[in-house]
Amino acid sequence: MKNTITIDLGNRSYPIFVGQSLLDDKSCFAPYIKGKQVVIVTNETVAPLYLDRLLATLASYAPETVILPDGEQYKTLDTVNDIFTSLLQKRMNRTVTLIALGGGVIGDMTGYAAASYQRGVNFIQVPTTLLAQVDSSVGGKTGVNHPLGKNMIGAFHQPQCVVADTDTLNTLDDRQLAAGMAEVIKYGLIRDTNFARWLQDNIPALNQRDPASLVYAIEQSCRNKAEVVIADEFEKGQRALLNFGHTFGHAIETATAYTRWLHGEAVSAGMYMAAYLSCALGWIKQSDLEFVKQQLLLAKLPIYPPETISEQQFIELMSVDKKVLDNKIRLILLKSIGNAIISNDFDFQELRKMLQTLERSAGDTP
Amino acid sequence: MKNTITIDLGNRSYPIFVGQSLLDDKSCFAPYIKGKQVVIVTNETVAPLYLDRLLATLASYAPETVILPDGEQYKTLDTVNDIFTSLLQKRMNRTVTLIALGGGVIGDMTGYAAASYQRGVNFIQVPTTLLAQVDSSVGGKTGVNHPLGKNMIGAFHQPQCVVADTDTLNTLDDRQLAAGMAEVIKYGLIRDTNFARWLQDNIPALNQRDPASLVYAIEQSCRNKAEVVIADEFEKGQRALLNFGHTFGHAIETATAYTRWLHGEAVSAGMYMAAYLSCALGWIKQSDLEFVKQQLLLAKLPIYPPETISEQQFIELMSVDKKVLDNKIRLILLKSIGNAIISNDFDFQELRKMLQTLERSAGDTP
Repeated sequence: MKNTITIDLGNRSYPIFVGQSLLDDKSCFAPYIKGKQVVIVTNETVAPLYLDRLLATLASYAPETVILPDGEQYKTLDTVNDIFTSLLQKRMNRTVTLIALGGGVIGDMTGYAAASYQRGVNFIQVPTTLLAQVDSSVGGKTGVNHPLGKNMIGAFHQPQCVVADTDTLNTLDDRQLAAGMAEVIKYGLIRDTNFARWLQDNIPALNQRDPASLVYAIEQSCRNKAEVVIADEFEKGQRALLNFGHTFGHAIETATAYTRWLHGEAVSAGMYMAAYLSCALGWIKQSDLEFVKQQLLLAKLPIYPPETISEQQFIELMSVDKKVLDNKIRLILLKSIGNAIISNDFDFQELRKMLQTLERSAGDTP
Repeated sequence: MKNTITIDLGNRSYPIFVGQSLLDDKSCFAPYIKGKQVVIVTNETVAPLYLDRLLATLASYAPETVILPDGEQYKTLDTVNDIFTSLLQKRMNRTVTLIALGGGVIGDMTGYAAASYQRGVNFIQVPTTLLAQVDSSVGGKTGVNHPLGKNMIGAFHQPQCVVADTDTLNTLDDRQLAAGMAEVIKYGLIRDTNFARWLQDNIPALNQRDPASLVYAIEQSCRNKAEVVIADEFEKGQRALLNFGHTFGHAIETATAYTRWLHGEAVSAGMYMAAYLSCALGWIKQSDLEFVKQQLLLAKLPIYPPETISEQQFIELMSVDKKVLDNKIRLILLKSIGNAIISNDFDFQELRKMLQTLERSAGDTP
């Protein structure tokens, strides 16, 4: 089973392959490797699980490997510089293809290294987490964190292809799987009512890692993201809808130093906060808010921000976010299930009230 | 006097303004600043000379400033990270415009910072050296050095406009002016016989910093470079011609740790080496080689590599250069004055002989 979604971006178009056992399928890779040099970039957690399989599949290229430490705290310019050092030591030229084998952190750093090494070389994404398969594999965003802000340094750089092998999700722990579900749920909420309804019935099967359900959910997520990205590759407008829940989520991650909360968990709480504010503004019905809440809880995700972040701290953290333009906080809010909008024209007092109310509700957070 | 050269790159097109007193001319800047935030990036040498004038011209934007240490040894990822830190501390968002006020190092680093900050913001180049005005202002190449290789990390990122004020060349010392002349001479040699002949008559006036001659030489250089870049923005083919003299030059710079030789001086010796090899291969006449030699000497430039670099070291250093594809050294060589070609199909023994011969000739090098 190998399904293909084509991301149509003119001369930067590429396919996403979704299915089982794709790590062993050389036809997912060979047509997309242009030169003779291949370097697989992965981390200490993923390498023991999947590196040998990928090396066997690509044996004819005799790939070099770069193995990084695992964790969002290593998603820094220093680590990317370590990749550059390895590439130069291994005498890699500008025909090299980098292959990112791992989750979003590996994909973001390898993509940025590919964007910057000798001013740009090819790369292939092999995402091994649900989050990476449904989010970072589409859209060409690459980059690293800076101590003063998440994802502040980076580039738009499209891969040659993406290989999403659903078998790799079997080694993912439940919490990581749930974190990926946050982004899956997001696509339904912001632009796809049918997918939101399908999820309501199928989240239990996804929690059980049913292969067919996973392939369908990943495909629908990638298709939804692709439609948005194709219309707005460089995030001049509607692409910002994909940041639903992310402005609040990034504030949570920054305040907790990227350690306690997983990205998807922070986005989950952020989506509930945005939905709650949308409801308080009278934009969605109470029953819609309840739908959002039930879907997130069904996926075993948190909905409340940590009580340790004050209202004022939230507002300050959101002010450095990339979604801030000319000093006005812009939020992605809901008009209905399946219909999100970008707005900086809302009652700021309702934002403050929401932050106060939900902080007091916090308790069962990660 | 304000002459304009338009670099036609579709939706990334931009103008280069060349003339006197342009630092005081707000019309060179205002139409190209899209948001409200402006940050001028410069260095400790240039700031005392020109920063106040530019701040006065742009007073309505109340620009912030970032002042870096001066020198190629600071053209590193660490320094670019210092720019990121300043931008984040100053709460700059993705509508910010960065203005690079300085030579090639400032332009390359500021351009790369602009390419990477929040995945890409606008920037304006204000080159204050001849080298930067005729070379780095056209083409969108940005980046930094890595301890293992020059310009190994970077991005293609086009400016909104380039403002080349020839008055700034009056504070340049003679050696820096000569280094810029190396690139000016290059354009004549690789693709513009008429310009090469004009230079033969006008290098003395340029040495004297005659304003009209400078404007003409800068315009012709930018026009020549623009024609090459427009045809091959991402250096897939013919753009490599611009690297005439650079493969040897980079080897000289790397071997001398970027300290003793200026970039233009190394390129000058590199061009003579390439011309000498072209002559040894029988591709150009002895009189053509003499023409190259006289032009470089007239501009007070070195033509011999330092005797401290052995033939073997040269070949090793050239093997990590970006011009190496699939392990074959590619060189830019001359077929005649005004006609260069890219070749990896030459007698390697002649390359070795040239290196041995010219090293023994060294003596009056920087």
